[in-house]
Amino acid sequence: MRRMLIAFVLCASFAFAQQISPADSERLAIRHLLQSQVDAWNARDLEGFMKGYWRSPDLTFFSGANATEGWQTTLDHYRTRYQGEGKEMGKLDFFDLQVELLGSDGAFVRGHWHLVMKSAGKEQGGLFTLVLKKFPEGWRIVHDHTS
Amino acid sequence: MRRMLIAFVLCASFAFAQQISPADSERLAIRHLLQSQVDAWNARDLEGFMKGYWRSPDLTFFSGANATEGWQTTLDHYRTRYQGEGKEMGKLDFFDLQVELLGSDGAFVRGHWHLVMKSAGKEQGGLFTLVLKKFPEGWRIVHDHTS
Repeated sequence: MRRMLIAFVLCASFAFAQQISPADSERLAIRHLLQSQVDAWNARDLEGFMKGYWRSPDLTFFSGANATEGWQTTLDHYRTRYQGEGKEMGKLDFFDLQVELLGSDGAFVRGHWHLVMKSAGKEQGGLFTLVLKKFPEGWRIVHDHTS
Repeated sequence: MRRMLIAFVLCASFAFAQQISPADSERLAIRHLLQSQVDAWNARDLEGFMKGYWRSPDLTFFSGANATEGWQTTLDHYRTRYQGEGKEMGKLDFFDLQVELLGSDGAFVRGHWHLVMKSAGKEQGGLFTLVLKKFPEGWRIVHDHTS
């Protein structure tokens, strides 16, 4: 009975593995990265949130009409804006994500973001475009355009 | 004398060709595409401007908080906004362009846009991120995020 069960699990795993193409697997890795950013944000963990970004002075971040360069500058900006005196981080959500691969180590994501603050009626939201590259340590956002 | 001149031109062309890597050549093609868009805009040729975009219902255009889908919808939007009754197209300029390749048939461009209207003091400007793919007919913008 136990061997039959093991055989069944192996067959099921094999069938499941067959359904996931390498491209699907990359897209899934990118979705996991973004979900881990959302989870970190909602745990007030800005360093964790920033793990999704390329840790480089060449990271670029366009927000509305403002352009920021560098991982550290971006983190400092978030700290001032969301963890400064009297500030709150709120609850973040990403939705309608479209993950598209460009070659074997490039990708871009289109999506919507939504941020709800504890203060009643305080909500922000909009669109974002992320450009990602695959590094030895995994996928990282190299450019973020949020509006 | 004429043969010497021809030999000189051939040598110079060869030396120049040696300096242009395949990647540089792709980046140059993308810059030309964007310049031809600027030229078309400034000639009030919206169809020409739209030649830079992927002619597909899957083209996406994020402008501020608005998302538009499709080549035709984007053209219609431009027509209404810039060629409607009492509207003007102004003089468009792109600057600070950064063209980066992603694999052999993907790329993204970061840049600034600036639009000056004839009406004194009427100026618009901001940032854009373009995602491009290389098709048999050449590079085309598949996603535009402007803010």
